[in-house]
Formats: sequence, C-alpha cells, structure tokens
Amino acid sequence: MAKKQEFVKEITSREENFSQWYTDVILKTQMVDYGPVKGTMVIRPYGYRIWELIQQQLDARFKECGVQNAYFPLLIPESLLKKEAEHVEGFAPEVAWVTKGGHEELAEPLVVRPTSETIFCDMFSKWVQSYRDLPMKLNQWCNVMRWEKSTRPFLRTSEFLWQEGHTIHSTQEEALEMTMQMIGVYGKFAEEVLAMPVIIGQKSDKERFAGAVATYSMEAMMQDGQALQAGTSHNLGQHFAKVFDIKFLGKDGVQEYVHQTSWGVSTRLIGGLIMTHSDDRGLVLPPRVAPIQAVVLPIAMHKEGVIEGAEKIVESLKAAGIRTEFDTRDQSAGWKFNEWEMKGVPVRIEVGPRDLEAGQVTIMRRDTLEKSVLPIEGLAEAIVDLLDDVQEGLLCKARGYRDERIFEANDLDELREAVEDKHGFASTMWCGSRECEDLIKEKTGATSRVMPFEQKCHGDKCVCCGKPATVNMLFARSY
Amino acid sequence: MAKKQEFVKEITSREENFSQWYTDVILKTQMVDYGPVKGTMVIRPYGYRIWELIQQQLDARFKECGVQNAYFPLLIPESLLKKEAEHVEGFAPEVAWVTKGGHEELAEPLVVRPTSETIFCDMFSKWVQSYRDLPMKLNQWCNVMRWEKSTRPFLRTSEFLWQEGHTIHSTQEEALEMTMQMIGVYGKFAEEVLAMPVIIGQKSDKERFAGAVATYSMEAMMQDGQALQAGTSHNLGQHFAKVFDIKFLGKDGVQEYVHQTSWGVSTRLIGGLIMTHSDDRGLVLPPRVAPIQAVVLPIAMHKEGVIEGAEKIVESLKAAGIRTEFDTRDQSAGWKFNEWEMKGVPVRIEVGPRDLEAGQVTIMRRDTLEKSVLPIEGLAEAIVDLLDDVQEGLLCKARGYRDERIFEANDLDELREAVEDKHGFASTMWCGSRECEDLIKEKTGATSRVMPFEQKCHGDKCVCCGKPATVNMLFARSY
Repeated sequence: MAKKQEFVKEITSREENFSQWYTDVILKTQMVDYGPVKGTMVIRPYGYRIWELIQQQLDARFKECGVQNAYFPLLIPESLLKKEAEHVEGFAPEVAWVTKGGHEELAEPLVVRPTSETIFCDMFSKWVQSYRDLPMKLNQWCNVMRWEKSTRPFLRTSEFLWQEGHTIHSTQEEALEMTMQMIGVYGKFAEEVLAMPVIIGQKSDKERFAGAVATYSMEAMMQDGQALQAGTSHNLGQHFAKVFDIKFLGKDGVQEYVHQTSWGVSTRLIGGLIMTHSDDRGLVLPPRVAPIQAVVLPIAMHKEGVIEGAEKIVESLKAAGIRTEFDTRDQSAGWKFNEWEMKGVPVRIEVGPRDLEAGQVTIMRRDTLEKSVLPIEGLAEAIVDLLDDVQEGLLCKARGYRDERIFEANDLDELREAVEDKHGFASTMWCGSRECEDLIKEKTGATSRVMPFEQKCHGDKCVCCGKPATVNMLFARSY
Repeated sequence: MAKKQEFVKEITSREENFSQWYTDVILKTQMVDYGPVKGTMVIRPYGYRIWELIQQQLDARFKECGVQNAYFPLLIPESLLKKEAEHVEGFAPEVAWVTKGGHEELAEPLVVRPTSETIFCDMFSKWVQSYRDLPMKLNQWCNVMRWEKSTRPFLRTSEFLWQEGHTIHSTQEEALEMTMQMIGVYGKFAEEVLAMPVIIGQKSDKERFAGAVATYSMEAMMQDGQALQAGTSHNLGQHFAKVFDIKFLGKDGVQEYVHQTSWGVSTRLIGGLIMTHSDDRGLVLPPRVAPIQAVVLPIAMHKEGVIEGAEKIVESLKAAGIRTEFDTRDQSAGWKFNEWEMKGVPVRIEVGPRDLEAGQVTIMRRDTLEKSVLPIEGLAEAIVDLLDDVQEGLLCKARGYRDERIFEANDLDELREAVEDKHGFASTMWCGSRECEDLIKEKTGATSRVMPFEQKCHGDKCVCCGKPATVNMLFARSY
C-alpha cells in the first residue's frame, strides 16, 4: 500500500516538466506501455476503452452522414503507392517495407499502409461505372504505420490506430461539401465528446496532405500552449482519379473523372484530451469518454449494511446507464481516493454507515475537486446531471484557457513572444508565401497551423515580410 | 436493368460446382472483392457490416466473462517469435517480413503478426508481479497475416481480421476452465447468432496450435459436407510462461509461472455462415447478423398514398429496432425481388395500393420462400417474431442437414465412403496414433477434426489399424 501511494505521488508537475508529466500520467494510469519495437505502443485496457468510446460515438456520426464501413488490405504494392507523384514523395521516407513472405523474397516489395488513398483508388476504378454508383462513401477503422524517428505514445508512434474515410463524388461541389461536412463532424465531436475546443481552418500549401488540393484541419491547444493537429479532411480534387483512372459515365453520356475526399482522426485524440484536461494529480476525463464515470467507495466496509447499501446505489447508477465501478478492494479509503483521482474518474461517491443512516452520500467531482452531499433518493438522476455539468465545465474551462492564449502578433518579435514567452498561439496576418512560412519556423520554432474559417483581421501587412497580407493565419509550436 | 437481372442469374448452382457457387455468391452480392496483392481481400460494406454485427455481439459476451480489450503492436521482433521453439516452427513458413523502414534496412527483421502470443507474453512478463495481478484477461480485435499459397475470400486469405484473447492465471485449473469457457462462448455464439451448428471437442496432437498443451475447436459442416474449423481455444499451459519468464509471487510467497490460454475466431465465420445457409438464389442470412433484416418494397409506387403508406411501415419497423431498408429505386418489382433474394435479406415486405386499402402487406421469408399476408396493425411485433422464427428455422435446418451426414465408420473403406461418396463426416473410433491419422489423410483425404466432448462409442477398434481404440474421433475433408 505504501508503495502504491508513493507511486501516485511520482507524477511530475506540469510546471516542472510538461513532457515528463504527460509520460508519467499515461504510464502510471496504465493507459499505455512501450512495445518491444522502438516507437511502438501497447494500448492497455484503460486507454483502449477510451478509444472504443471514441469509435462508437464517432462511428454513429459517420453513419448519419451516409458513410459505410469496409476493410481494405494492409499491404500496398509499391507500384500503386508510386502512381501519384506528390503522394509517394510525401510518404516514401516513412513507410515500412515487406520484402519477404515465408521463406521467399517477394517479386515486388509491399508497403505497410501509411494511409490508404492508393488502394481505395485502385478498387474505386474497378467499382465505378456510372453516376448511379456515386457518391460512394467508405470508411475503415484500422492500423497504419509510419516509420517515425521521434515518437511519443498516442501523439506520434510508428503504428497507430485511426479511421480513414474515402469518398468519391460526381461533382466538385459535392466533394467540397463532403470535405467540409467531415471537418465539421470532427469539430463538433471534439467539443461535444472530448470537451476539447478546436479551431478549424485550411492548412497552408506546405502543410497540406501529399496529393490533396486542399487540407482542412482542427487544431487544439494543449496546456503547454502548443498546438495539436487533431483531425484533417482533404479535398483531393481529381488528382488521384486521373492517375488511377476512376471514371464514370455521367447523366449526359460523357465519361468524367470522379471528385474525391479523404479524412481521418486517430488515437492521437487520446493524447489530445489528456493534455487538454488533466492535472498534477493525474487524468481528468470528460464523462463521455471516461471508461468509468462514477466510482462508488464503501467507507468502513466491514460495518453492517454498508456493502449492501452501497451495492443498491451501484445498481441504480448502472440502471441509469452510468458506467459505474464498485471498489470493494481491501485498501484504505485514502489509497483509493488517490487511485481514482489519478485515473480521472469524473465522480467519486462515498458511502459510509452514517451516510446510509442519513439517506445521503458524499460526492467529489474530479474536475473541480469539490465535495458535496446528495440524497440517495434520486441519486442516479442527480449523477447524470452532474456528469453533464462536468462535461460542460471541462469544455468551458479549456476554451477559456485557450482563448486567453491566442495573441495578436504584428511582427516576428511579437510572434516569437506569443509562442515562446507566453506559451500560446500567434494570430497573424500573412502574405501566403512559403518563404515567410519557412523564415517564421526558423526564427521562432512556430509552424503555420490553420487559416481559421472565422478570419480575424489585424491590419494588412504580413507578420514576416511586411508586404500586403492576404489572410489571417495562426502560428504555433506544435506536436 | 436487363444486364443486372442476368447478373443475378449468373450464380452457379451448388450441385454443379460448390466452389464456384461460393465465389459467385460473395462477389455478386458485393460482400468482398480481390485486393491488388495476391491472396488478399477487400471486405466491402455488405460483408463488413456482418463482421461488425459479429463483433458487437461477441464482444458483449467476452465482456461478460471479464475480458478487457487492448491493442498490441502489429510488428513482432524475430527474436520474440523465436523464443518458443514449437511456435516458431509452426509459424515461420507463413509469416511476412518487414526488413526496411523508410530508406534503411532494419537491424532486426520484424514479422507482421500471424498471431500475438509472443508479444502478449513479452508484456505480461513486465506487468505481472503478484497473484493480485491475476487473472489478466485481454483480447484484441485486429488484422493478422499468414502467407498462404492457396487462398479464398473469408476462408483463407493472407490477411484476415479476427479477435485473439490472451489470458494468464495463477492455477492450472483456472486456465483450463477459461479455455473451456471460451470454446463454450464460441459454440453458443455460433448456434445462437450465426445459426451454425457446431461440434466441440479436442484436436489431435497433430492439429493442435503450435505451442499449446491442448487445442479445442468448434467444427461446422458446410453444405458440401466438408468441415470448417470455425474457432479455437488453446490451453497453453506454462510453455510460453517458462520461455518468456512470466512469473508471479504466490500467496505463499513462492515465485511461480503463470498458466495461460489463447482463443480466436475470425472473418472465416462469414464464409462459414454463407456455406451453411445460402442457396442457389444467393445469400440466406440469419437475422441476427443480417445487415438488412427487412426490406420494404412499395408496389406501384407512383400510385397515390403508396410511398407514404410504406414509409409509415418503415418507420414502425425501425422504431422496433428492425434493420430496415426502404427500396424506392426506379426499378421493376421483379428486379428488386431478385436483388434482395440474392442479398439474403430475411424478410421482404410488399406494400401495394390494394394492400394498403385492405390494411395488410404481403410478406416473403427468404429461408423458405413462403409468402403470407399480415395485417399492418401490429406488423412490427409480428416481424420481430418472424425474424426469431427464421433464425430458429435456419439453425434447425442446418442441424438436421448435418446430423444426417455424420456416418459411423468402422474401417477405412467406410471412412472414405462417408467423406467421399456421402459427402459427410465420419465418426470413428481411433487409437490416437499419428501414423493412423496420416494414413487416413493419405487414403481418404480426410483429416482429424475433433474428439467431441460428447463422445460416441462404436466399438473398441481403431478405424485404421484395428488395434484398441482410445477415443471417438471425427474425420472429414476440410477447408
């Protein structure tokens, strides 16, 4: 017991070392562990349950958009990957190659998918004949692999889990609409389910997906002021359609190329929600993705009627659809308090003999650490409401935190100050040139994040070169 | 239209060529397609939806057994795979090797997991300290790869989707109990959800999993009389624990090795359910895994009130939780009948103007092709009941079919006759020797399937050598 309590206290504070704090939190809560191959992670049950809850809720939203799930092969022939020039250039440096099957060398090397545009295109070209076959809106939940040099669990690993949507349409307008719809779905999901506020906008040409016409992204601010690209939606235009020959017979009897989109979010979202909400005691989980939403702790368990009384409460919570844990382990209350706080369970419910006598329980909410007393009668309904409050409170707090850390920057000095001294985002006017974008990176370490859909105007001069600016761009250091 | 109707008629009959019939059914219903790499498959939405329904219902049953989901890395270092001698010998000939990451050769080659015992063991050895950490019951839903020479979609492909459960326990008894519990879960699932009757028993030493102490399997009979191994559960004993050093401190303060199990089912189940129920018109799907359980076809759609009347029916079915499709496409009723029969939708509901006037609809159930008339009032409840009937009817029919084709065989001739002439399983007495098992394979093409838990006795002599028999063994040709 002593050992374990110490364990909890071993979490480094965010102030002292944010990066170490993150590592402590994810390892000590047993969300994840390092795999035997460098750069890989094992997602343990407590982390994986969060992914399952993300999947369920996001998948339902996809299905509402008419998207159907499918599964495409892991291995892609080199020749397919190479078809779209910009795409292969972007991905070739970071793919893993299968060169041997059983005891034989393969005639053609295969890549472990880093993303699946090419193999979807290959099949689309077989499946589509006429406008009647369109739109085709597919998605897959799968693993992908990118051979990264520098890795961190959830944020950047050589293998990760994600979903990738791939759709084809008969018109440019429809493809653009789909691209926008999906980044919108992601944004709403991030805010409503993960309680993670995001800024949505378009990426610069430098930062867009290899092979896309335009990439849209949602960017979140972590508690260290760095940006996390949390989801992207690409308008692929007809780039892939032309090299993969995905044609359809239009209503007018003319052969045309399809217009395409792709979009994805990954287990990176888990890293994002941790770095958005958690604190020096450990995880703080938004109720909608918390594996355990409420933990019931019987106090003085050995006293007559306590276990039975607490059990009744557990049953009523479960019946109300609350993911409830009943902790009857033989440990001290103090030890359990620490454990469940570290694990970020949104609500703790203490049930002692005196509580039961008085027909009440003691509640602690994890986000504010506030305690209160609630009557047992109608408790389940009260907890449902409380969980909604916690969910809303987390979003509100994170939004306030972020909004305070977006600074208008009118020159390079102010930009550097915003990201380096003030640990935030710089909202700038930008001329749109690659030269300025590169120079900003060199001088400040910040990269362009997005041109927000909600454009702000801070004048008419580029933050870097002083020439006429065309757009409001957010710059930040990023994960 | 003409083209499509022909399409439907192109399904080869089972009588004529069972194997071609299977291929026709899965391709023409768009369940699956061939991937660009030989031996791979693309699971299309209609096939994948079945897998999702299997996953949901099986996963809930796992969770009831206290199993938690996790995710382990795809790539396994060669050195890990090699630790357990029998295991590597079994799998090495059929693994895919990653030898290059980005532009660099890897120092140690990595295998794409053919199964994950070794990597689970590697992590278990880090995670387990004392008996308090046990049992640990993990499962993952993932892709695996086996470099097969001869492949068929769903039945045997170089990549497939599956779940693999891995558990560790403090006692031998508990591990054995878990092994049995899981093969039991599989068997109940196969019968209750897939309506696929199975025979459960133990595998011969020759057929057991590489590295296991004992393998238990469920075997189903396809309509051509061949056996399909549809799920396995392995008692791994302490084989892996010893080579991976998975030790725990017992209650008595002594270090001991854990006792281990693993168990899995795969997308092969989809192939199994097709070959169990489907017919010359195409798919016949058990309602519990049918992507669409009822299709509503408005007849004479252009007539006033038909669409509206049919729509109300659709809404009431959906409200009752029935997966319902409303087919208002501009095609003839005959074309739609063919299409939905081919796709195996359990219940077709025709709604015409005269039906609506009379307050009734015309129903056809796919399994028996019987038509009937039902009142619109209370229709949803009636369809729920009908779907239950279909589900039960399919299991009953398949069980009858199978039971008629299990033949007692007392010598090699009778065994050959059972599998070759009568297209069934041979129930035999067997001495247990590898020599007889090999000779039977050579002479009859049949392999040992299982020693059923429900042992039959047909005498005391081995079907092959005539020496004293120790056990009742099923032999059959198999997928």
